[in-house]
Amino acid sequence: MTLSRRSLLSGLAAVPVAGLASPTILRAASHSAAETAAAPTLPVAYHSFQIGSAKITALLDGHFLLNTGQINGFDQVQADATLEGSFYRIKDSEMSLPVNGYLVEQGGAVTLIDAGTADLFGPILGGLEAALRAAGKTPEEITTVVVTHLHPDHIGGLIAGDGTARFPNAEIIVGQGEYDFWHDDAVYAGVPQENRGFFDIARASVAPYADRLKMFEGEADVMTGLRSVPLPGHTPGHCGFMLETGAAPLLIWGDLIHSTALQFARPNWTLAFDMDPEQTVNSRTRMLDRAASEGLLVTGMHLDFPGLGRVERDGDAYAFDQAPWQFSL
Amino acid sequence: MTLSRRSLLSGLAAVPVAGLASPTILRAASHSAAETAAAPTLPVAYHSFQIGSAKITALLDGHFLLNTGQINGFDQVQADATLEGSFYRIKDSEMSLPVNGYLVEQGGAVTLIDAGTADLFGPILGGLEAALRAAGKTPEEITTVVVTHLHPDHIGGLIAGDGTARFPNAEIIVGQGEYDFWHDDAVYAGVPQENRGFFDIARASVAPYADRLKMFEGEADVMTGLRSVPLPGHTPGHCGFMLETGAAPLLIWGDLIHSTALQFARPNWTLAFDMDPEQTVNSRTRMLDRAASEGLLVTGMHLDFPGLGRVERDGDAYAFDQAPWQFSL
Repeated sequence: MTLSRRSLLSGLAAVPVAGLASPTILRAASHSAAETAAAPTLPVAYHSFQIGSAKITALLDGHFLLNTGQINGFDQVQADATLEGSFYRIKDSEMSLPVNGYLVEQGGAVTLIDAGTADLFGPILGGLEAALRAAGKTPEEITTVVVTHLHPDHIGGLIAGDGTARFPNAEIIVGQGEYDFWHDDAVYAGVPQENRGFFDIARASVAPYADRLKMFEGEADVMTGLRSVPLPGHTPGHCGFMLETGAAPLLIWGDLIHSTALQFARPNWTLAFDMDPEQTVNSRTRMLDRAASEGLLVTGMHLDFPGLGRVERDGDAYAFDQAPWQFSL
Repeated sequence: MTLSRRSLLSGLAAVPVAGLASPTILRAASHSAAETAAAPTLPVAYHSFQIGSAKITALLDGHFLLNTGQINGFDQVQADATLEGSFYRIKDSEMSLPVNGYLVEQGGAVTLIDAGTADLFGPILGGLEAALRAAGKTPEEITTVVVTHLHPDHIGGLIAGDGTARFPNAEIIVGQGEYDFWHDDAVYAGVPQENRGFFDIARASVAPYADRLKMFEGEADVMTGLRSVPLPGHTPGHCGFMLETGAAPLLIWGDLIHSTALQFARPNWTLAFDMDPEQTVNSRTRMLDRAASEGLLVTGMHLDFPGLGRVERDGDAYAFDQAPWQFSL
């Protein structure tokens, strides 16, 4: 299957599904045709830090707006109490959330973990490739792309505008269960026509890598120094990755948390994007608890850029302690 | 007076003065001749945020290493207690501190507040101009440079390698008292020959702007929307600037704090760079107290990049609450 970017966008723009797409994506996608040409240049932001033998670079793709109507269980009074005294604000029922990817350089491998949105979300996102280049690497130099799950803001950047591989020399590592779900024709057949955009994008994004696709199952060493950590719920095969660095391990946890502002304090609040909310909360609280107990260094694809920090316990819930810019270990 | 960069560096390298220079500067300066050619590319980091009608861009010049021996009153046990559980570490008696400059775009003015080190501190600093360019502005587009004080890490970037003005179209705004101190021939005559590097740099950096130098005294409207806030002690004329934005004021406080890690918690700890330690502490505690009381937004030239945050009270001392990357107001 090779779909052009244009057909993917039109497919995505037609998706009104709770649990898969959202008004935010719809709006961002509907922006793209009209506004891409006149888009202001996105700020370029990357941030490198060293942990043991690994050089990690956070790559900012951009920010999207989450509407509080997309938060399951959202309560304005509780949200106000959580945000009081902080820098976070809900404005016109919206909050700004980043999309990050992470470059890992270790032992000769140049690994990208998640690939950003490219142009799938319009001009307010899609900065990851420019950030990668500003950090001194080209798409051609990437040896491996590891993906946490097959949602469009994580894999949009896998393919170029013409549907070909954006990383011509990279192998792609993806969970078998995640791959299977989005490629399951029975599931696809049961999804209404207008909801198939996510499936089409998932399929089209990995298709050009068919001859260099490496799958793993459950908890596995997916490459040297990188072990998968299944965190199902957000999607069936959603997972994080534990990076061994020789100093301290770094957990790159994908979409375990979408809102730094709200979900550490209220881990039971899920998003319309979380396909199985109960399993999402279960994976989240188990992982947050472990991260706090072990004092793990963590990063995530929607943690406030650059995303490096640690989880702390705060009463019955949690808090995020972000590392200062100059932190290295 | 026009000094070449080379003669400035040799002057600086000769300065062993507590209260003016430091072993760190010596070491950084001594690096530069040998290592500049082979220096790795500095990471480029800038971060823009909007506050009301002002677009502010933090520009990272780089990081230098502060030796704890340069901290007046430093106590390892107290430091360990302050840093416990945080990301901050003292390694081989050193801590990494940033140098930031701030670009302010408002009402047609393109204002740079402090100009970074250029090549005065060797290859680990000097990134400000690249950050400025990455943010979309050239030195030629700067209409005004405002300086908090005339230390080399704030004004090194004012001049090019040949001693000419790096900002050919900018007027320079500097405090009269600060200017006078570094240009006082009686003071200069009393300073040992080997300690005159700072004076030579201060003089040489503003000299090319002699015909477009604007001075102010005390608390004054130095340009539209920007008011000086005297904070003497670090240098005789050291000051911050209060930016009026129409939303909330932003205090750009220069060197009120050098170590985000230590000095909010221990505001009585001064550095060897602070010329009058008692006055430094007095200015600091008064300003921190006001910032906490008023909930002021603040940035600073040595606050952890990008430096935007607020001051909170923490018992008898203070803490810093850093704004998330996506914060705008």
